[in-house]
Amino acid sequence: MQRIAIRRRVTRVSTETGARPGEDLLAAEEPLEIRVGGTSLAITMRTPGHDFELAAGFLVSEGVISAAEHFRTARYCAGATEEGLNTYNVVDVTLGRGVPAPDPSLERNFYTTSSCGLCGKASIDSVRTHSHWRVADDDLVVTAELLAGLPDRLRAQQEVFEKTGGLHAAGLFDGRTGELLVLREDVGRHNAVDKVIGWALTEGRLPLRGTVLMVSGRSSFELTQKALMAGIPMLAAVSAPSSLAAELATEVGITLVGFLRGSSMVVYSRPDRISAEPSPAGERPHSSKVAIS
Amino acid sequence: MQRIAIRRRVTRVSTETGARPGEDLLAAEEPLEIRVGGTSLAITMRTPGHDFELAAGFLVSEGVISAAEHFRTARYCAGATEEGLNTYNVVDVTLGRGVPAPDPSLERNFYTTSSCGLCGKASIDSVRTHSHWRVADDDLVVTAELLAGLPDRLRAQQEVFEKTGGLHAAGLFDGRTGELLVLREDVGRHNAVDKVIGWALTEGRLPLRGTVLMVSGRSSFELTQKALMAGIPMLAAVSAPSSLAAELATEVGITLVGFLRGSSMVVYSRPDRISAEPSPAGERPHSSKVAIS
Repeated sequence: MQRIAIRRRVTRVSTETGARPGEDLLAAEEPLEIRVGGTSLAITMRTPGHDFELAAGFLVSEGVISAAEHFRTARYCAGATEEGLNTYNVVDVTLGRGVPAPDPSLERNFYTTSSCGLCGKASIDSVRTHSHWRVADDDLVVTAELLAGLPDRLRAQQEVFEKTGGLHAAGLFDGRTGELLVLREDVGRHNAVDKVIGWALTEGRLPLRGTVLMVSGRSSFELTQKALMAGIPMLAAVSAPSSLAAELATEVGITLVGFLRGSSMVVYSRPDRISAEPSPAGERPHSSKVAIS
Repeated sequence: MQRIAIRRRVTRVSTETGARPGEDLLAAEEPLEIRVGGTSLAITMRTPGHDFELAAGFLVSEGVISAAEHFRTARYCAGATEEGLNTYNVVDVTLGRGVPAPDPSLERNFYTTSSCGLCGKASIDSVRTHSHWRVADDDLVVTAELLAGLPDRLRAQQEVFEKTGGLHAAGLFDGRTGELLVLREDVGRHNAVDKVIGWALTEGRLPLRGTVLMVSGRSSFELTQKALMAGIPMLAAVSAPSSLAAELATEVGITLVGFLRGSSMVVYSRPDRISAEPSPAGERPHSSKVAIS
């Protein structure tokens, strides 16, 4: 499955030099249907790759599972095209024994679709999930210098973005040592985060105490909620957060960092986790042990 | 409802100067529940404002309605908070006579949730909507020079982005005169596009023949499909498209433009609609008639 980037013929146009034929590499986008026990739960438009992690992370984000043993197996459904070929676009998950299957008709129907029938439920409550973890008491302290170095380190590892300019990235860092634990890319930023969380689940690392989740774009309510569901105490982004991201982060005790550019950043909640005294030069560690593919 | 941007106390941190208190203006994000005839259909996280247009555009994008008379009325449901106050986060739409109500249990469940029960349906087909309009035969021709000027004109009108750095924008332009017909901003780029399309529906302008839809970020499959559902023949973006956006655009005959920066751009489909000969200087028109708020 080398479908993460796709080459296409294009026309390059310039007001100065006119039109000429060329080629371009595009970030792959395909639908993934996530099933649990054969029942369809959600379709997401994603970049193929790490699909089992994506399914696992999605189920963590939605509060269905929270430990490696809850995610027993995953497999691609076969026979998906008219010719009987596998499209690798349908993943069926078998949950661990005793884990209740999600019921889309009773639940909040996975974020964008609601079966909420009562007026007033379409408030923030109806899109809220409930986390197994508390992050408010995570005693992580990160130096501002370490944080300031994360965007460059994220970008340096973004292999597909470099080729296509079309992918979001999510990187999980150890907040104390700065080690990059895992990086995932996807056309959907929520998918990139779900892939990171799914990796952590299958590695038996939930809750992700002491970590920083760094995302390439903006912070939304949805991403903040995903961080909460995985027990991540700090969410940092290159760009702006939304109002509801800051509100949720404040409420649950996540440190939310935005506009992380150059040597500066804006902290929207729990600034006590950031030590603004610069570390002595040369102390910042770099690691080569990164799960990238 | 002045909830489009929200002021918050923040901590500004720099590795050079340390931490100091400050203020920041955040792009507002709140859930909107869209109902049809009292039945809940979808929840989307959006920036408040132009909510009826958002609901209308969502219903166009999903293939439920395609003309102004299909969208009879919209109102905010009352009594949404515990104190009985209206949150303005629930919109109920009454469809025109004879317009069939959407059935979420039978349909593709609005994009991210699928009730598709058959293996193999989670291909591109299961997330496809079917347009009332043909865009392949739209005889629009746009000069490269006009296109090259659109990003600056979009940015110049992005009032809230300037303040918050946190909003996507979608602008609809007349492809021949370059007139900006409408601009909408939202934390979700799909919402910004739905608001534009909802505006066009209520103005009786569908299908949007001869127009260019310009978006501030990347082009996805979803955005390309929304353009198709509104009959828009050209979709232009500042950043990269996904593979499936280019594939869909090619299939249905939309001109897809990416990396529209400075004087150059990349054209992924139907380049015949772009005239690469520069216009004589001074010919490009500017209009002040813009529906911004």
